[in-house]
Amino acid sequence: MSDLRVAVLGVGRMGAFHVDALSRCIRGAEVRVVNDFSPERAYEIAEGVGARVVPNPIDAVNGPEVDAVVIASPGHVHETQVDACLERGIPVLCEKPLSTDVESSYRIVRTEAALGRQLIQVGFMRRFDAEYLALKNLITSGDIGNPLMVRCTHRNPAVPHSFDSEAMMRDSVVHEVDVARFLLDEEIVSVEVVKGRPTSRAPAGTWDPMLVVFETQSGRLVTDEIFCRTGVAYEVRTEVVGERGSVLIGLDQHLQAKTADGRWGGPISAGFVERFAHAYDTELQRWVDAARCGGIDGPGAWDGYAADAVCEAGVEAVRTGQKVAVAMQGRPEPVEFPAEPEPVLYAAELIGDRS
Amino acid sequence: MSDLRVAVLGVGRMGAFHVDALSRCIRGAEVRVVNDFSPERAYEIAEGVGARVVPNPIDAVNGPEVDAVVIASPGHVHETQVDACLERGIPVLCEKPLSTDVESSYRIVRTEAALGRQLIQVGFMRRFDAEYLALKNLITSGDIGNPLMVRCTHRNPAVPHSFDSEAMMRDSVVHEVDVARFLLDEEIVSVEVVKGRPTSRAPAGTWDPMLVVFETQSGRLVTDEIFCRTGVAYEVRTEVVGERGSVLIGLDQHLQAKTADGRWGGPISAGFVERFAHAYDTELQRWVDAARCGGIDGPGAWDGYAADAVCEAGVEAVRTGQKVAVAMQGRPEPVEFPAEPEPVLYAAELIGDRS
Amino acid sequence: MSDLRVAVLGVGRMGAFHVDALSRCIRGAEVRVVNDFSPERAYEIAEGVGARVVPNPIDAVNGPEVDAVVIASPGHVHETQVDACLERGIPVLCEKPLSTDVESSYRIVRTEAALGRQLIQVGFMRRFDAEYLALKNLITSGDIGNPLMVRCTHRNPAVPHSFDSEAMMRDSVVHEVDVARFLLDEEIVSVEVVKGRPTSRAPAGTWDPMLVVFETQSGRLVTDEIFCRTGVAYEVRTEVVGERGSVLIGLDQHLQAKTADGRWGGPISAGFVERFAHAYDTELQRWVDAARCGGIDGPGAWDGYAADAVCEAGVEAVRTGQKVAVAMQGRPEPVEFPAEPEPVLYAAELIGDRS
Amino acid sequence: MSDLRVAVLGVGRMGAFHVDALSRCIRGAEVRVVNDFSPERAYEIAEGVGARVVPNPIDAVNGPEVDAVVIASPGHVHETQVDACLERGIPVLCEKPLSTDVESSYRIVRTEAALGRQLIQVGFMRRFDAEYLALKNLITSGDIGNPLMVRCTHRNPAVPHSFDSEAMMRDSVVHEVDVARFLLDEEIVSVEVVKGRPTSRAPAGTWDPMLVVFETQSGRLVTDEIFCRTGVAYEVRTEVVGERGSVLIGLDQHLQAKTADGRWGGPISAGFVERFAHAYDTELQRWVDAARCGGIDGPGAWDGYAADAVCEAGVEAVRTGQKVAVAMQGRPEPVEFPAEPEPVLYAAELIGDRS
Repeated sequence: MSDLRVAVLGVGRMGAFHVDALSRCIRGAEVRVVNDFSPERAYEIAEGVGARVVPNPIDAVNGPEVDAVVIASPGHVHETQVDACLERGIPVLCEKPLSTDVESSYRIVRTEAALGRQLIQVGFMRRFDAEYLALKNLITSGDIGNPLMVRCTHRNPAVPHSFDSEAMMRDSVVHEVDVARFLLDEEIVSVEVVKGRPTSRAPAGTWDPMLVVFETQSGRLVTDEIFCRTGVAYEVRTEVVGERGSVLIGLDQHLQAKTADGRWGGPISAGFVERFAHAYDTELQRWVDAARCGGIDGPGAWDGYAADAVCEAGVEAVRTGQKVAVAMQGRPEPVEFPAEPEPVLYAAELIGDRS
Repeated sequence: MSDLRVAVLGVGRMGAFHVDALSRCIRGAEVRVVNDFSPERAYEIAEGVGARVVPNPIDAVNGPEVDAVVIASPGHVHETQVDACLERGIPVLCEKPLSTDVESSYRIVRTEAALGRQLIQVGFMRRFDAEYLALKNLITSGDIGNPLMVRCTHRNPAVPHSFDSEAMMRDSVVHEVDVARFLLDEEIVSVEVVKGRPTSRAPAGTWDPMLVVFETQSGRLVTDEIFCRTGVAYEVRTEVVGERGSVLIGLDQHLQAKTADGRWGGPISAGFVERFAHAYDTELQRWVDAARCGGIDGPGAWDGYAADAVCEAGVEAVRTGQKVAVAMQGRPEPVEFPAEPEPVLYAAELIGDRS
Repeated sequence: MSDLRVAVLGVGRMGAFHVDALSRCIRGAEVRVVNDFSPERAYEIAEGVGARVVPNPIDAVNGPEVDAVVIASPGHVHETQVDACLERGIPVLCEKPLSTDVESSYRIVRTEAALGRQLIQVGFMRRFDAEYLALKNLITSGDIGNPLMVRCTHRNPAVPHSFDSEAMMRDSVVHEVDVARFLLDEEIVSVEVVKGRPTSRAPAGTWDPMLVVFETQSGRLVTDEIFCRTGVAYEVRTEVVGERGSVLIGLDQHLQAKTADGRWGGPISAGFVERFAHAYDTELQRWVDAARCGGIDGPGAWDGYAADAVCEAGVEAVRTGQKVAVAMQGRPEPVEFPAEPEPVLYAAELIGDRS
Repeated sequence: MSDLRVAVLGVGRMGAFHVDALSRCIRGAEVRVVNDFSPERAYEIAEGVGARVVPNPIDAVNGPEVDAVVIASPGHVHETQVDACLERGIPVLCEKPLSTDVESSYRIVRTEAALGRQLIQVGFMRRFDAEYLALKNLITSGDIGNPLMVRCTHRNPAVPHSFDSEAMMRDSVVHEVDVARFLLDEEIVSVEVVKGRPTSRAPAGTWDPMLVVFETQSGRLVTDEIFCRTGVAYEVRTEVVGERGSVLIGLDQHLQAKTADGRWGGPISAGFVERFAHAYDTELQRWVDAARCGGIDGPGAWDGYAADAVCEAGVEAVRTGQKVAVAMQGRPEPVEFPAEPEPVLYAAELIGDRS
């Protein structure tokens, strides 16, 4: 089987990170086309991996040597880029959000559903993190009984000045939305935001920190403390409280030093790349493996839409101070999720290719 | 200085626990009078320590050999018992609540204020726990910056069937109310209760677990997850999140075993006695030391009233599902808190006594 | 029952610490006599608690108002002071060592045995520490199977320049010797010292750190890393490795902060007082309770002798670099250890006293 | 640049693990030839990845389509297999040991040195583990001062009956030997073994557990508790104690559950694959990257020889009960270690290849 030839749209921090992984440690893929709204940036990144620069993203998707697409461009152009992938019928890994308005996201869901196969994977990388998987397995095992609450903490050391409450909801809380849906296997039906006293580091009008409270279909509580300007480091913890026990992940406490200041302790992961590096690699490798077979292997368009819909309600909840119901459309007739993609017979196929 | 001769009113579990400590490990006190609504129980406990049984609690307070009183009777009789102590002008350590309705608690506060000295200490023992004190000190040090949030978790393994949402608020959450007031040095102004999916162990109509959200005068958030039927053990954790860092106490992770089931870990404290044994002893010893000088050394009547007022609003918040403002009266002209009681010259005085 | 009237011999740091506890938080005792080789120091401490200064330690033991004795003087005078207590037939709590040469310690053991009752308790306070007790209980429970190894770590932040390898053995390692005997219920039969590269903080000729390896009667290994000049804080950890699991105590990790240097962690106990404060109080309270009944309640003269004998071999092991057998005499016909002292009917007796 | 075509010699558990990784998640490599002493096993594994079976290992090394070799065969055939690689001048990743006698290992070192380039990498995978790297970096940073001791713990849940003290030394302790050399950047000069009471699970004559004590050139202590039949799980911890602090890695405490047995804790890694999976992948990926440039990137033949020499002394130390000096030959004129292999321009080269 040939390597997957990938076009990467958007090579800012996250896109460049994916290009690097696809060229250095992900097996079975090669970056062939790079696109960015900044041609200089595109050339700089493309040169490092011997890829071609295509100035127009839609042309990039349609490049003759392109088998699949990674979208890491700004959110407002995701919709047209995803559409182009669907039109061409090739797999795409789209960083969240699926689109910047819920109606568009839903339209994408329906468009893909009409194709009869899943082509869109959304970049919720935590689903590939070993601790989240262990947590999911432990819930499924029944050892802690029926889960009643999911309690999340998401703290960033610093964010740009422009990162307001809406951005906190759409860019940070969105991960906990997906985590909750993943862990509980049900939808979120309402959002409420409890605003506290903002840190003096927050611009006026930005509620940082805030406490977001979700309710699920079956009445479970999900809470998320989101605090983006702690001045400390990157902290993401999730605790699930069940009827017969609780589980906590995200301690991020490894190397332990005892130092001349009379303290014990260790370093906290500096950012999401350090914390979730392995999860990103696993996400990409599994997507590449599946895309070589023409599919995906992870959260799909519906998950992207659902998260967008919840965050839309969340933004409204910040604005109004009220509990806001999530307006979610019906799920189109289910496209079967390819839980186990066709076995990948790498070496055998490669031999066949070349002999 | 003579030993403090104490009357203990109510010798159920908590009262008997106090009698035992006062007779076994607290210096400078002796239990001289025991009262309980059950005469049999009173005799049983009194006999063990050579104390006199006085069937009527007010008579007990007024016993000629009584220097101070510990109240551990049911909450609905606290008011008259505290009143009797005030009337006689002797120090009293009253288990929470100060009384069972807020107006009575406030009246007690004013009555004591009119006396011009503090006689009432309320049994919020966590203020004497080494970890809470370290947390308080760390906040005061400024090391984590201005505190923005206090996040509490309070879990019990099991409670009686009759322990409904109101009891959860008045008997359990009340501790976190005092903790927050202690740590933040300000009053709570509103309460909201977020109800989730109750455990199947909870009787119908009891919201267990629930999430209680408090707001303080300066706009800080205090949250308390209260879950009384976990089936696990006794867990009390408090995290304070400041502008420049956070602190967590209550891990309760000491002895660590690795066992043949392939697990690492250890036992969790079974109940509040195991978890807060040292805090109770310290509370009692400091109260005894202060009472021998005629005063108290710990949270006072105002703290008891404030906690009652917040919990009253909390009960309303459970009932209505709304955010409820705390109706708190003005604090009577402050009675100076005797932060440093007169030095206790134990041995010197004892020699004087007996020579 | 009257309070126990105590003479304290030696009021340096440890003696003053005991005087303070006996006067402030230990029930049923009062310090009546203070002795120190420095009269000024004796007066200073005695004045604070209204005690009498007696310049000669033997006179102090024989003071008419003295019921029991605490010895916290330098080790080389312990022998004659303990002898005086035995002669007078009153209980004594003697800080380690029992004496400074093994023969004398053994003679004391025999002298006490000839009296037919235990009067000497040796100050191995760790036996009263909650974690060591939990560890002992867990071993006894059989949950980790037959214990095979005890691995100890003992680190001090700093010690005086004169604290050489012999002092490390006799003053620090001696605690682990007692811990191992306590946990394993058997004697140590040999000692070997593995010398590593000393810290640059150690004076020439002082092996700091060193690794001490003990063997027990049944062939179990006990190791102790002793490091007295770490520049960090006070660390004492013990791990027991059994046939079916292992247990570790002494983590000393409570309050956990996340701070602006991007680190998680917390403070380590500064010294043995902070780390073992509760153990010291429990030791004293239980000794006072037992001494009021004329006995002791803790490690006895034999434990003191056994520890001295092992440390004597340890000093030889440092000197020779060889494995040294412990020369231990036979245990005199056992004096029954009063595991359960007579019930202390405090309040009842007090009433009797005064009525 | 073409993919590295690899021959894998020996496809037992470890070899099959490498074949799987090379075919599934390592970029830039493909398994083309498989060899095993069991032809059935070789066919089974080869079929899964489309590789050719070559019954003779030397023929496998010399296969025309082979660019590099992975040796995971039994130790006693390593020497001739490594020799064949050197003769053909192709890179080899050889699982430890380099050979089964020290003289042979040294001859291999000299043979490679005579070639003037490094072709042999030895499979000490811990050097690629994130925690060991962080530990190494922290030592290098000077934050804990000059390291004085390395204290290792290595526990397995179970091993085959035949796994005697010599096997414990050569197969398990050998990892700690490499870790110590890696962390301290110096050689080990002596070994002593302290035998304790063996677990009842150990066959007669097998000292399990045992304590191995190493001394380095500069006089530092390295200790290793090796216990292979704990019945628990896989535990590998390393603590480095420096002049100004200490550091511990290997806690392996991630997901934390609180369960209905009143306990907190979590699972321990079951075995070395679970514990070091990422380290193995990183080792392989870096070796493949370097081998495509004709070199290696990790511990070399000298490291393999040095570990063999220390373990040889260790086996003698078990046998004699004495401290045994390590007999180590002089290091042949150093072949420069290619710390930074030529930059790998994957995609660019691939395009060149195919256009």
